[in-house]
Amino acid sequence: MISSKRVGVLGGGQLGRMMAEAAHRLQIPLHILDPAPQAPAKQLLAHTTHIDAPFTDPEAIRQLATHCDVLTVEIEHVDTAALEQVARRPDSVVEVQPTAGTIALIQDKLRQKEHLRARGVPVPDFVACADVEAVATAGNEFGYPLMLKARRMAYDGRGNAVVGTAEQCTSAYASLGSGDPSSVGGIYAERWAHYRKELAVMVVRSRDGRVVSYPVVETIQRRSVCHLVLAPAPVSAKVAEEARRVAEAAIATLDGAGIFGVELFLMEDDSVVVNEIAPRPHNSGHYTIEACQASQFENHLRAVVGLPLGGTAMSVPAAVMVNLLGSSGMADAAQTALAVPGATVHLYGKPDMKPGRKMGHITVVGTSLSRVFAAMAPILAHLDRAESNADSAAAETTAIREQLAAAPSISATQPGEPVVGIIMGSDSDLPVMRAAAQILEQFDVPFELTIVSAHRTPARLTEYARTAYDRGLRCIIAGAGGAAHLPGMVAAQTSLPVIGVPVKGSTLDGVDSLYSIVQMPRGIPVATVAINNSTNAGLLAVRMLGVRDDAQLALMDRYLADQEAQVMAKVERINLVGYKNY
Amino acid sequence: MISSKRVGVLGGGQLGRMMAEAAHRLQIPLHILDPAPQAPAKQLLAHTTHIDAPFTDPEAIRQLATHCDVLTVEIEHVDTAALEQVARRPDSVVEVQPTAGTIALIQDKLRQKEHLRARGVPVPDFVACADVEAVATAGNEFGYPLMLKARRMAYDGRGNAVVGTAEQCTSAYASLGSGDPSSVGGIYAERWAHYRKELAVMVVRSRDGRVVSYPVVETIQRRSVCHLVLAPAPVSAKVAEEARRVAEAAIATLDGAGIFGVELFLMEDDSVVVNEIAPRPHNSGHYTIEACQASQFENHLRAVVGLPLGGTAMSVPAAVMVNLLGSSGMADAAQTALAVPGATVHLYGKPDMKPGRKMGHITVVGTSLSRVFAAMAPILAHLDRAESNADSAAAETTAIREQLAAAPSISATQPGEPVVGIIMGSDSDLPVMRAAAQILEQFDVPFELTIVSAHRTPARLTEYARTAYDRGLRCIIAGAGGAAHLPGMVAAQTSLPVIGVPVKGSTLDGVDSLYSIVQMPRGIPVATVAINNSTNAGLLAVRMLGVRDDAQLALMDRYLADQEAQVMAKVERINLVGYKNY
Repeated sequence: MISSKRVGVLGGGQLGRMMAEAAHRLQIPLHILDPAPQAPAKQLLAHTTHIDAPFTDPEAIRQLATHCDVLTVEIEHVDTAALEQVARRPDSVVEVQPTAGTIALIQDKLRQKEHLRARGVPVPDFVACADVEAVATAGNEFGYPLMLKARRMAYDGRGNAVVGTAEQCTSAYASLGSGDPSSVGGIYAERWAHYRKELAVMVVRSRDGRVVSYPVVETIQRRSVCHLVLAPAPVSAKVAEEARRVAEAAIATLDGAGIFGVELFLMEDDSVVVNEIAPRPHNSGHYTIEACQASQFENHLRAVVGLPLGGTAMSVPAAVMVNLLGSSGMADAAQTALAVPGATVHLYGKPDMKPGRKMGHITVVGTSLSRVFAAMAPILAHLDRAESNADSAAAETTAIREQLAAAPSISATQPGEPVVGIIMGSDSDLPVMRAAAQILEQFDVPFELTIVSAHRTPARLTEYARTAYDRGLRCIIAGAGGAAHLPGMVAAQTSLPVIGVPVKGSTLDGVDSLYSIVQMPRGIPVATVAINNSTNAGLLAVRMLGVRDDAQLALMDRYLADQEAQVMAKVERINLVGYKNY
Repeated sequence: MISSKRVGVLGGGQLGRMMAEAAHRLQIPLHILDPAPQAPAKQLLAHTTHIDAPFTDPEAIRQLATHCDVLTVEIEHVDTAALEQVARRPDSVVEVQPTAGTIALIQDKLRQKEHLRARGVPVPDFVACADVEAVATAGNEFGYPLMLKARRMAYDGRGNAVVGTAEQCTSAYASLGSGDPSSVGGIYAERWAHYRKELAVMVVRSRDGRVVSYPVVETIQRRSVCHLVLAPAPVSAKVAEEARRVAEAAIATLDGAGIFGVELFLMEDDSVVVNEIAPRPHNSGHYTIEACQASQFENHLRAVVGLPLGGTAMSVPAAVMVNLLGSSGMADAAQTALAVPGATVHLYGKPDMKPGRKMGHITVVGTSLSRVFAAMAPILAHLDRAESNADSAAAETTAIREQLAAAPSISATQPGEPVVGIIMGSDSDLPVMRAAAQILEQFDVPFELTIVSAHRTPARLTEYARTAYDRGLRCIIAGAGGAAHLPGMVAAQTSLPVIGVPVKGSTLDGVDSLYSIVQMPRGIPVATVAINNSTNAGLLAVRMLGVRDDAQLALMDRYLADQEAQVMAKVERINLVGYKNY
């Protein structure tokens, strides 16, 4: 009714299964080609025609095409020649989305990289290696460790070999079948990427070539397989923007409609390079089911049948996804997740559990990455314990948790997300205003901090105040010294509550600033705090947000309790040691 | 793997279909009993055993039981005797959840009401009517209009008849088949409920009898069928709490596990009474799929198989659901929704569209009810246009929109429930503090005003501060002169934002009060305004409420614009008459 197009999917694994959920909601008939009669996707599709055959079987592909209007894939290792053929047949009415050519290009990682590099999309340095000598040459040029990669059939770390030293060139080359054309289709060498993080962006391309991206996520691998996905990625707004720009640029160079997973490296210098692309829904996009306006699966279907694309923004503040790979800890992890608020368990219905096989995943949504990750601790503990190196696995998890707890608000500095704006008349006020920022971080409140001078940048002040609400701000903290017109002038041009911090200058003890901030005319209120006390400005902002968010208020309750406890501890101590030795 | 229990469902409509989505994720095998071979639920369940027979067919129920561990329902009009039988069979290992007895009780609306009333759950006055004379008697007691209801097979307004006047008793009674036992199973009369709103609460009951509720929603009917659901309901915190209390109390009186839909009336006096109960997932709970931690469908399955219950809290600030009933506007509405960010379209895969048949629904999530409803305007326009009385339908929609825009979080500004507390150290401060009260009146913000002295009533101060939040306050304005300890002492004992007004005394010009209010130690912030300027305190309070309430913010925008206009008028005048005559 929404779309008359029947869709054929090559592959019926978990990606096809989650596609089927979306297909049912939009009443898009889905037909699956997969060797397994009980393939995960087929379990959800009772009244469509499936084919039990390999998705690499040309005849089966032709057969699927006979009762479909669009063919698409949930795995890239398909017979693109056969796809090309069905699409090209003169009498054919079947489309292939994305195009067979795009899938073929992506199948060959070397061609994929050449294609991107030629179009100015940043990729690591690489060179084809016809023989082992070429590997040594690459080693000399790129240095060691050197990454060797098979051109074809490489995924989840398979088809990759690390060359630690020049001596290992031969063994590494051999470990990849010496580039046997019939299997790996050749080998290429890549300069080792010294990356800070691995990021990923899901990009959906409509039939008219428009590309829209989802928020950037951080992916954390285990044994080269996706283990955790943090959404949004705990990176700066600048990095997040750059990652989406690069990912969109990469997909804009490809033909055909559908969703694409773009794996990225965030380098030491904050630059972003493309690692590789998947022409299909991607593990790093599973979080979109619970956390975004439209899931990657629904948007893939919308794109291939030519429906308007759904929103890609997150509908919740934060989400973390963990894969359930076949292991002894998996069942306990899933069971535990049932009791974790905000957790959704996805099991894929795979008949037999093999070690390392993707059996399901768990997505937990919540108000911040640090809170979500903390809530997941019991789930992750089961998975860590099942690892051969359980201790280092647990340590790794703890490290991530501490990292997120240490910088809780980083996740919130995504574009558009700050809810509090901290501004100061001059950078000389920063030492005083920093305390407000620290409080907001402590309470996981997303904020922005910048300089706006009432007297030196009046136009900027007006611009800042008038756009504050639309940019998502709900409260502004303004610090200024001397005549201190900033808070009042901002309050006069926005309806948001404005908190004023009088900054003590070299003369008059800050009383001048206090008076000019607090003694506002009737009609324009400024919530004034003590001279230099931007800590209280931050706390006041949190209390104001508490008007909207009970969770915030609860945190403030705890904060007050902690303060009381600290004083009581001092009482204890002074009783214990006496005032003389205190 | 998570649960070994196989579940049989009586009924395979949209509720069973959405149950199936949840079942797949948890790998719970679902078997459907429904006459339609292509029933919506069966379309998602390829590899389980379904029975194509009426869910009222005892033999079919027995057959279903043979390959299930638990039987449950997605519709209450089933053969409870047969359910009772399979559960009771000595050799039987099958459970029925909720129990056949509970389903039977609910099938008979009269028994349902008697059961609830007997257990102290508030319900409207009602009386059984054995004949038409009894109807007249009821009319005399309850007054007119009087509501006549069939005991059985009544839903979506069917089986109800309004008796406008004593003269209509006979016709109304006849319109319900004169209580023919074989069909409607008798008739009862109910006192007309003069309600302000219709509310609904989904309550899930675990096998150990624990009850957990979802947030209360407002339901808006059209032609007695659910049209819109607003989540959370735009009611005061107090009303919301009462609604959940009543709903939980009602379900606590029933046997068996599963989700229950509790329809409620919010009466003029803010009391809440139960209208009726559904022993299954409910239309008013569809929003939980996108908007809550665990959906009503997943929690129903978890409950009936005995898994831990999932979180019921909303994971997004607001959601609105609209039903797609068979109509000429339905397709356009669904198409339009595809382009609305935050909208999820659910089509039920029903073969043929009949007028009024539930074909699907659309849920839109967002940051506030007013924003979500505004975003839905183009969707609702298509549905309204398709109504026979298109104009009044559109007017109805506009009215809801304006109501939400005027007070998107009415919950914050419900008449009668103060959200701001104005306190002063002494009645001598009233002349100054009155201005704050006037501002709040001007902005329609409910407030309370009283005297609390830090030095003369310290205990009262503590009591006031510590209970402020629970009493519904979201912000406190404290005015004091002299040493002025009141604002700080209050701020130290609540997490709500506190605004301090220094009141000018007979000496020191109020500077003493200003200093003692503004110079708070780190940790306890007080939003200080100018000496004697309680006008700005009121305006600041409104801005703070604006953090949660877009309408409040809009009003403040207008206020600032008015101020500007007033000054500009004076500019005009001084230009016109010249400064000499001004």
